[in-house]
Amino acid sequence: MSDLSHALNETAEAVTEALARLLPEPMGHEGRVAEAMRYACLAGGKRLRPFLTVSSARLFGVEGEPALRTAAAAEMIHCYSLVHDDLPAMDDDDLRRGQPTCHIQFDEATAILAGDALLTYAFEVLAGDATHPDPSVRCELVSGLGMAAGPAGMVGGQMIDLAAADNELDLAGITRLQNLKTGALIAFSCEAGAILGEATPDHRQALAAYGRDLGLAFQIADDLLDIESTEAELGKAVGKDADHGKATFIDLLGLEGARDYSRQLVDSAIGRLDSFGKGAILLEEAARFVIDRRN
Amino acid sequence: MSDLSHALNETAEAVTEALARLLPEPMGHEGRVAEAMRYACLAGGKRLRPFLTVSSARLFGVEGEPALRTAAAAEMIHCYSLVHDDLPAMDDDDLRRGQPTCHIQFDEATAILAGDALLTYAFEVLAGDATHPDPSVRCELVSGLGMAAGPAGMVGGQMIDLAAADNELDLAGITRLQNLKTGALIAFSCEAGAILGEATPDHRQALAAYGRDLGLAFQIADDLLDIESTEAELGKAVGKDADHGKATFIDLLGLEGARDYSRQLVDSAIGRLDSFGKGAILLEEAARFVIDRRN
Repeated sequence: MSDLSHALNETAEAVTEALARLLPEPMGHEGRVAEAMRYACLAGGKRLRPFLTVSSARLFGVEGEPALRTAAAAEMIHCYSLVHDDLPAMDDDDLRRGQPTCHIQFDEATAILAGDALLTYAFEVLAGDATHPDPSVRCELVSGLGMAAGPAGMVGGQMIDLAAADNELDLAGITRLQNLKTGALIAFSCEAGAILGEATPDHRQALAAYGRDLGLAFQIADDLLDIESTEAELGKAVGKDADHGKATFIDLLGLEGARDYSRQLVDSAIGRLDSFGKGAILLEEAARFVIDRRN
Repeated sequence: MSDLSHALNETAEAVTEALARLLPEPMGHEGRVAEAMRYACLAGGKRLRPFLTVSSARLFGVEGEPALRTAAAAEMIHCYSLVHDDLPAMDDDDLRRGQPTCHIQFDEATAILAGDALLTYAFEVLAGDATHPDPSVRCELVSGLGMAAGPAGMVGGQMIDLAAADNELDLAGITRLQNLKTGALIAFSCEAGAILGEATPDHRQALAAYGRDLGLAFQIADDLLDIESTEAELGKAVGKDADHGKATFIDLLGLEGARDYSRQLVDSAIGRLDSFGKGAILLEEAARFVIDRRN
């Protein structure tokens, strides 16, 4: 097993354990919402965002509970966004990672509430004393996550995406959509390590920029996997986004163009890590992994 | 006009102006979510929670931007909860304050996103420098609002309420439901003034207890208004909750019993304010107003 796979697995286990410990236990008549929160967060997933937070925190010597709580908060936001995106009024998906989505397993009302509860709880975790001894650091984490997740970040991106079938997005438009929808939270997950480590503004900006490049490369890799796996499995050349009339990077750049662009982004992401030297080797490997993965 | 009406109007205007200033302006392809956020927050309402925050902050000499930002954050949470509660999968309401609800005016997906965005943005506002010079105060506000709004507060209460048609709730059960669903955010709105004012634990607890009593009295008054206005307008003795098979305080205590209980709660609420002397006169009047109001 490579060092990267080992580190990915180790962080995934640690953050899953932290989520299991932090999330409320089902109790009383409201227990169903706690059950649904746990279902949404504990059913697996790559835990990419937690890995980025834990790895970037380590660059500044921050380990243990502060890194894990911050990583868990970012993952709660990611999981809430999946629960709400899967709702019938949104993308209307019944399956996620081979399991029934939250509103299928429970019901729509419970899924809406579980998403709301995860979103709320992420901020409560960040503001808690155990996240960092310095309250100004905790406030920066809350502000940063708020900006990444809110109307100028993830929610704004999801709004553009829902409107995208009606809007002809060009390359600048689709890049902005993806930067908001997935890039902002990935960039925050990287920057959060620097916030926890009370790093210099240069280091903080470098990690955020690494995250933005990585996030976009990740999205293009997703588009490519969507087409390649559809070709292999269903024998047709178009994926789900294309079926929905939404422009993808592949429509705009072609298959080879999209592959080239994702490689350029990974090179750029790795370049952002120059000032960290060998300490950032896992983040470098993670960037390469993002476009080489097969799922 | 009484001092209370004057103060209520003045705070409502100030907090509406603060909301209009703080909420994002519609721009770009994602502008629709900002439009829906503004629609949900700027269409009126009593602004009871902001009034409680501004009035309790004033007890400790806190005025201006810190009080208004905190009040606006509590109101964003209240407004998001109305947007999500009105959704077809929840209470399925088309009208709110005589206007189309958010998902009718826009669409379901936009209403879900606008609620998510308001919830996220409330925490971002609280964590911002302008809310209080001391970051530990800002963290306490974030934690307090998180607890009041999350699975152990408002969302938990809404979960109990949705399950309530299937659960036979007794007086203790319905009291707990209402304490979570509406009481927790009202209690936070009161306690927030003490947090901003870096008050003693005694003062902070007194204001939270005042808010819990007030919140419950408010809810019983709502049940009574529901029945009384239904009787007057429709000539039948049961309101909407009773139609839905949900137990109310009136089912359990009878009309007179419920009226007595709400009066006892208001007396109790006013008793909590003893240590503040005449400074708390507006909060005393607000408690009486809650059970005397006609809408």
